[in-house]
Amino acid sequence: MNIFEMKNLCYGGDYNPEQWIGYDGIWDEDLRMMKEARINCVTLGVFSWAMLEKEEGVFDFSWLDDIINKLWENGIHVILATPSGARPPWLAQKYPEVLRVREDRTKQLFGKRHNHCLTSPVYREKTARIDAELAKRYGHHPAVIMWHVSNEMNGDCHCPHCQEKFREWLKIKYHNSLDELNHAWWTTFWSHTYTDWPQIESPSTIGENIVHGHNLDWTRFTSDMTIDFFKSEVAAIRKYSDLPVTANLMDYEWMDYYKLADNMDIVSWDNYPKWHNDDETLIETAHKTSFMHDMFRSMKQKPFLMIESTPSLVNWHGVNKLKAPGMNTLASMQAVAHGSEGVMYFQIRKSRGASEKFHGAVIGHSGRSDARVFREVAALGEFLKNHPEIKGSYTASEAAVLYDFENAWAVSDLCGLKQNRGYRDTCMAHYAAMKSVGINIDVIGKTADFSRYKVICAPMLYMTSEGTIAKIRDYISGGGTFIATYLMSYADENDLCHLGGLPGGLMDVFGLWNEEIDSIYENNAVIADGKEYTVTDYCELIHPDADTDVLGVYKSDFYAGEPAVTRKKFGAGTAYYLAANTGADHLKPLYSKIFADNDIKPLIDSFDENISVTRRGDTIYIMNFSGKKSTAVYKGETITLQPYECVLKRA
Amino acid sequence: MNIFEMKNLCYGGDYNPEQWIGYDGIWDEDLRMMKEARINCVTLGVFSWAMLEKEEGVFDFSWLDDIINKLWENGIHVILATPSGARPPWLAQKYPEVLRVREDRTKQLFGKRHNHCLTSPVYREKTARIDAELAKRYGHHPAVIMWHVSNEMNGDCHCPHCQEKFREWLKIKYHNSLDELNHAWWTTFWSHTYTDWPQIESPSTIGENIVHGHNLDWTRFTSDMTIDFFKSEVAAIRKYSDLPVTANLMDYEWMDYYKLADNMDIVSWDNYPKWHNDDETLIETAHKTSFMHDMFRSMKQKPFLMIESTPSLVNWHGVNKLKAPGMNTLASMQAVAHGSEGVMYFQIRKSRGASEKFHGAVIGHSGRSDARVFREVAALGEFLKNHPEIKGSYTASEAAVLYDFENAWAVSDLCGLKQNRGYRDTCMAHYAAMKSVGINIDVIGKTADFSRYKVICAPMLYMTSEGTIAKIRDYISGGGTFIATYLMSYADENDLCHLGGLPGGLMDVFGLWNEEIDSIYENNAVIADGKEYTVTDYCELIHPDADTDVLGVYKSDFYAGEPAVTRKKFGAGTAYYLAANTGADHLKPLYSKIFADNDIKPLIDSFDENISVTRRGDTIYIMNFSGKKSTAVYKGETITLQPYECVLKRA
Amino acid sequence: MNIFEMKNLCYGGDYNPEQWIGYDGIWDEDLRMMKEARINCVTLGVFSWAMLEKEEGVFDFSWLDDIINKLWENGIHVILATPSGARPPWLAQKYPEVLRVREDRTKQLFGKRHNHCLTSPVYREKTARIDAELAKRYGHHPAVIMWHVSNEMNGDCHCPHCQEKFREWLKIKYHNSLDELNHAWWTTFWSHTYTDWPQIESPSTIGENIVHGHNLDWTRFTSDMTIDFFKSEVAAIRKYSDLPVTANLMDYEWMDYYKLADNMDIVSWDNYPKWHNDDETLIETAHKTSFMHDMFRSMKQKPFLMIESTPSLVNWHGVNKLKAPGMNTLASMQAVAHGSEGVMYFQIRKSRGASEKFHGAVIGHSGRSDARVFREVAALGEFLKNHPEIKGSYTASEAAVLYDFENAWAVSDLCGLKQNRGYRDTCMAHYAAMKSVGINIDVIGKTADFSRYKVICAPMLYMTSEGTIAKIRDYISGGGTFIATYLMSYADENDLCHLGGLPGGLMDVFGLWNEEIDSIYENNAVIADGKEYTVTDYCELIHPDADTDVLGVYKSDFYAGEPAVTRKKFGAGTAYYLAANTGADHLKPLYSKIFADNDIKPLIDSFDENISVTRRGDTIYIMNFSGKKSTAVYKGETITLQPYECVLKRA
Repeated sequence: MNIFEMKNLCYGGDYNPEQWIGYDGIWDEDLRMMKEARINCVTLGVFSWAMLEKEEGVFDFSWLDDIINKLWENGIHVILATPSGARPPWLAQKYPEVLRVREDRTKQLFGKRHNHCLTSPVYREKTARIDAELAKRYGHHPAVIMWHVSNEMNGDCHCPHCQEKFREWLKIKYHNSLDELNHAWWTTFWSHTYTDWPQIESPSTIGENIVHGHNLDWTRFTSDMTIDFFKSEVAAIRKYSDLPVTANLMDYEWMDYYKLADNMDIVSWDNYPKWHNDDETLIETAHKTSFMHDMFRSMKQKPFLMIESTPSLVNWHGVNKLKAPGMNTLASMQAVAHGSEGVMYFQIRKSRGASEKFHGAVIGHSGRSDARVFREVAALGEFLKNHPEIKGSYTASEAAVLYDFENAWAVSDLCGLKQNRGYRDTCMAHYAAMKSVGINIDVIGKTADFSRYKVICAPMLYMTSEGTIAKIRDYISGGGTFIATYLMSYADENDLCHLGGLPGGLMDVFGLWNEEIDSIYENNAVIADGKEYTVTDYCELIHPDADTDVLGVYKSDFYAGEPAVTRKKFGAGTAYYLAANTGADHLKPLYSKIFADNDIKPLIDSFDENISVTRRGDTIYIMNFSGKKSTAVYKGETITLQPYECVLKRA
Repeated sequence: MNIFEMKNLCYGGDYNPEQWIGYDGIWDEDLRMMKEARINCVTLGVFSWAMLEKEEGVFDFSWLDDIINKLWENGIHVILATPSGARPPWLAQKYPEVLRVREDRTKQLFGKRHNHCLTSPVYREKTARIDAELAKRYGHHPAVIMWHVSNEMNGDCHCPHCQEKFREWLKIKYHNSLDELNHAWWTTFWSHTYTDWPQIESPSTIGENIVHGHNLDWTRFTSDMTIDFFKSEVAAIRKYSDLPVTANLMDYEWMDYYKLADNMDIVSWDNYPKWHNDDETLIETAHKTSFMHDMFRSMKQKPFLMIESTPSLVNWHGVNKLKAPGMNTLASMQAVAHGSEGVMYFQIRKSRGASEKFHGAVIGHSGRSDARVFREVAALGEFLKNHPEIKGSYTASEAAVLYDFENAWAVSDLCGLKQNRGYRDTCMAHYAAMKSVGINIDVIGKTADFSRYKVICAPMLYMTSEGTIAKIRDYISGGGTFIATYLMSYADENDLCHLGGLPGGLMDVFGLWNEEIDSIYENNAVIADGKEYTVTDYCELIHPDADTDVLGVYKSDFYAGEPAVTRKKFGAGTAYYLAANTGADHLKPLYSKIFADNDIKPLIDSFDENISVTRRGDTIYIMNFSGKKSTAVYKGETITLQPYECVLKRA
Repeated sequence: MNIFEMKNLCYGGDYNPEQWIGYDGIWDEDLRMMKEARINCVTLGVFSWAMLEKEEGVFDFSWLDDIINKLWENGIHVILATPSGARPPWLAQKYPEVLRVREDRTKQLFGKRHNHCLTSPVYREKTARIDAELAKRYGHHPAVIMWHVSNEMNGDCHCPHCQEKFREWLKIKYHNSLDELNHAWWTTFWSHTYTDWPQIESPSTIGENIVHGHNLDWTRFTSDMTIDFFKSEVAAIRKYSDLPVTANLMDYEWMDYYKLADNMDIVSWDNYPKWHNDDETLIETAHKTSFMHDMFRSMKQKPFLMIESTPSLVNWHGVNKLKAPGMNTLASMQAVAHGSEGVMYFQIRKSRGASEKFHGAVIGHSGRSDARVFREVAALGEFLKNHPEIKGSYTASEAAVLYDFENAWAVSDLCGLKQNRGYRDTCMAHYAAMKSVGINIDVIGKTADFSRYKVICAPMLYMTSEGTIAKIRDYISGGGTFIATYLMSYADENDLCHLGGLPGGLMDVFGLWNEEIDSIYENNAVIADGKEYTVTDYCELIHPDADTDVLGVYKSDFYAGEPAVTRKKFGAGTAYYLAANTGADHLKPLYSKIFADNDIKPLIDSFDENISVTRRGDTIYIMNFSGKKSTAVYKGETITLQPYECVLKRA
């Protein structure tokens, strides 16, 4: 049995029984409460290296045997983790080269989690060894349904070995030509022309860190090495086990998760939204969260797994609010609605000590099953147990947001446009405007098949290769509707600016020349359809062609009355250009109109602004992200939703 | 003669005559002005090492002989300091190991003050040598009345020697058992199980610094090493001198001053409140200041010494306000009222150069005795000279605030409850509410004799050992009144959470189960006695037993109407629980009622809100912390206080 | 031909043709567009080292020959730079000692610009070699009119070699006497008495950095080493060329530009004001900018050169506003009006990659000559070409602001007076008040000839040597009018406080004793002439002599009614003292009155507040720093200025 063959959605979470060895009766109590909560699956072994290999090569799997067997006797499956996310002290003591070197060239001491050199042969060897031992011993255990590789992979290393690997990576990329590298990094600036490979080092605050091509290549290298490390662990597992592999991704921006996902059997991620914060409404948080769910689902165009979430509060925000009654159920159902194959918590039993001891858990320090959090978790378990039909269901989208990780790196490293650049935030803002129309949306990378979608929006797509430019041209000329914004196509894939006019390679497609970009202190506004929409951060000064429709103009500054929003028919398609950050009030009606023009229909008739609507399989999920009653209309019927309620309707 | 035998309170301060060698006439002018100001005591030698031992082993005490003799000829006593607070350049040059290593493992260069390794054998040897030389030469000089060891002891060192000492300290604490240490530090989390003592290092930003048990032990170790260093200096002095020893403590939180105080003959501290700041009223500053005075007095249940204060401004705040006319006198009298055996300034003559040259002093750069500051200092000197009866007097308190240093470390290191934790601020807020009733208060540690007090409040007492829990149970069951707040008894002495329900080990005593703690953005409120009191930071969700009185309930959020303040009779005593931070408006009437219930009577009939009242010996000090006239009533008589006035009444 | 012999003002800027080698046609297009814009001069070679010397001692000047010849064929002159501002990777690889060590003793890696040890013999040798090669090859080329040494010289180095040089520098300053040094640094404080020269190191956050005399000497040393490095480059050039030398200075405060300027043939600077920011009005920005122009002009009492500026936006501010139409012309004309011998931009063609690719340029990435920025640049080129009479013209000033770099260092390092100290800002505020009267002003150092001026103001002149004190006494007693403020004459040239009363050495001149200085939270006010003027930051408590006129008194705090502004007749002159920061509303009428009293006449009859007026040669420049129309009256004629317009009138 593997995860795909399970009858029900996974329900459970990270379980760390090794923390409770010596506490008589705790394991039995855990099993009793898990069953009471209808938990059918736990993740084991995420940080167990030190407890499995107490000295090099001396393995002790007895406690893990015991707990896996106990779980299985109680009908609970296991997702088994490789322990590479944190290493035992003896490993760091014996092989100090496994520890990271910071960008400022400080060698780290043993401690914390993500503290291993990504390229270290020793670390890879030791990791492969224990991974293989685990695969051999548990790869065919009936309880085990999947491998979970490492934990929240993150960070870079600047040790001498990584420096050497970086140079090797550069030699491949630049065909052994320093001339090519010098051109890509524009090293004639500030007399940086490299004449010998060893002159090149990773970016550093004590060396070079404002050459954009250089920074970009370092992030690409680190992303690639992380994927390479992941693959090396999978290879070790594959010697003995064919079970599916996954890794728990995060909301990080620095690694190309689209590339990493290609190497997984199912995409998993850890979902920790800041519910109930006071910077935004709950529906705003919900849209940001579903953007992430939709991105992870879109990676393989298949259901994914929310492999971590908290049943209560987290422990790292400035203010760690309790989830209000119903909120955990709603947030869990949102994951399911957007394609998750389960609801998994971190963690089953709250740690007694160390830095996460106040992070929410299914079983608290009191150990009481009459606790509010436990009761809500148990009720959701009962519900999910009764809905096996959700498992494996999937619904395609007709519209997509293009979110490109490499572009994220380039935009965050921009020098000269320092106003709020929030690339992901901007993509999320467009996503939220689209979502508020009430449709399913994909969040795709630049290598996705564009032809699946009627509408694609690509905010702030600053960095465009020739290939991406051609792909956009083809998409639009072939009939697609494409929405671009300010910062569109400024530079090529090495962050060298496009010459000859912006948007680079696409002036004819959008029917305009973007001459200058102004950063603004106070707001400007765009006037469109007789209304005024506030504009922040940037205003581009564009010159539309005669046959380009001007949909909005600037209100003030020396470019008052100049065009700000345009539309151009190009081939069989349509190209929109938003030269300024116009905000939700402008985007919502714009996308509503665009979807109507493209025959993309809302999932239900209408709904209040706090509601999010999504379809998965034959079911429409109507979710009230609000502490108040809200209303939706579906097939003519008015539905009243209680606070935090999720209502399921047959499509 | 020693300090205890002096007839009058000490009046004077730090004097650094070595800065003025080569300036003809300055010493004589200093003596003239000291006498004009009725100064009877100065502290010498605090930073004189470089001037006493210009090269290793070559001592030159001639200038110190001269000035001590001159002072004595003029009737001025001397508190003689050991010079270990700062070292001469030659010492750092010859023995670089005496300099500190930072937590990031950076070796410091020579410079500043607190820059010596606490455990360095070389530094201890060199310190002991000069201390002994001083003790031998001046230990029986008639002018000298006390030893002042080092200066404002502070900070830690992470050098290899300290790492080794830390491991030795851990071995003792954990009975040579890594299993015990691993359990206390909960090292199964993140695979940290130690298998060899040398794997353990001090906390570091480049290694491990979020394991709470580890951090806590490091702070304990550092506190112990500081005390040990202090004791090593005392031992050197004791070879030749039996004069009392002290050290100038600060408002620091990281060292267990209660433990350090046990090794002193009199407790001294440096008092630098931020008078006239714009974040709080003067009476608020006054209460914070008297909290400190009361803590230092409570350490030995004896008078203490305010060994430093500024006659004018300080030089390290963002805004360094001049003291208004009368303010220095009032602040000085406050110290006396709360038990100080003197009023000592830093410093007598303002330095001409270096970083404290703009810090207030008795004699300014102008050298003029018609200066405002000097005239006020001289007037106070005259007053103190005329009141020898104050010397040695002491009054016990019936109520106390429990302030525990180890708890301060644990609370400040909490991970997961990030809202304002201000442990000391919270203790001060309860103290201020109690003080506003007009009584004497002690500020005690967890090892104090609780039976002395009718009422003890212990805000945010997060960390409680079995011993402390038992002590609290006994105190309450024996008839005491005890006030606890949110964060009560969450964890044991190693910061491992109490299991089975909170407040750990005390659920029956307080008659409630504390299930969850919410952190809040905006305010909530508690409704009690028909009034509404604003609540900030945290709200605990508690479940009182049937026989527990509910004194207040929450106003809003999903727990509106739920209990927030309770009272339980337990044995012969009473246990109050404040599940939220209710603020001064709630605390003042609450404490007023509690004191009335316990027959603790205000010192005077009534007084305006800007007034603070304290009794020492037979005298009641009524102090107007305000630039306006205020009114108090004592024994039926209405007293009008001028701005900044302190009125003395016979009790 | 050299720059002084040119018929016209220089018009052009930095040109980096080596960035475009391999881009066919770009050079020719550049030349075409330069000519279209009437550009007559470009700066070449600023960062060309790596392109001229690809390996040690192997020079390739072919591309530079080509472009210089091409430029000359097109009538464009060349300012040729030495390349020491940034080094090639091979140099850092082969001689790592040329790279800097930070104050925290971290050795830097190759990267960025200002990353060379100022004292390194190797770096000086390599720099001298290429400088000499350049001088030999191009020192007599007809196109080349000046040498531009290095680039925006900046920063310090703490390597062992610099430590040794620092000690040598100190030995010279202190006549080989550690006693002298110990006194100047007041090392008796904190036991710092040095007994061996090697004990002394540069200031460091990991060592000593709060001893003011020490910090001051380090900054003096660094300033001197920078000048020394500049001189070493000039010496190399002088082997083969007698062309004038300059260096592009900045708005930096840490180097004594007055001393550096003595070594140049013409003073140049890079002018990057934050036009259109939202913290201040445009005329405020304009006054700050003209302060700088006037300072650089005053250094030699001769025309200077604005050698860099941006034709559009910059790329390093938080918000990088486009210059509004007309703004670049106005800013350029302001430089000319205040004495610039040209208008030079950074850069001619915008870089395609690296960190300055979004900084404004004459030719943008689009390469289009119909671009707004290019058109405005071209129009100004045409204007300047038609006004050769401006070249070399100069007008002397009757009033001056004293701005002393060493004082800037001391004031910024003050410990104890932490409120806004902004020494330069305060000098600029007085300058702006003076400028608003409509006169020409010089900005001079303490070594300038005071007798040139009828009025000198010297705000916050905290640090005064005996020589400076004598010079001020002589100036005033000889008939000058001198305006001083709070912080006047507190310390000597080693930052040792003056004894005996403040202002040190000048109490009789100003007729007062400054007893204390208060730092204030909220505002106080000064009442003068029946009006109330807001006061911020500091209030000194002064005691005027009987014959000193009190012009204003404090409004509140315990010193309400006490004097705040005074005037004293001293000898033939007048000494004003402003004991508090009274602000523009007070300063403008005060200076208007002072100028009237001294027979200094405004250049024109009257003008709106957004206008700045300056005379150069026979021409009065009336400039409207505003996006609105403004009005001026000259010789009875009312002149209406368009937004951003500069009107020239014959004086």
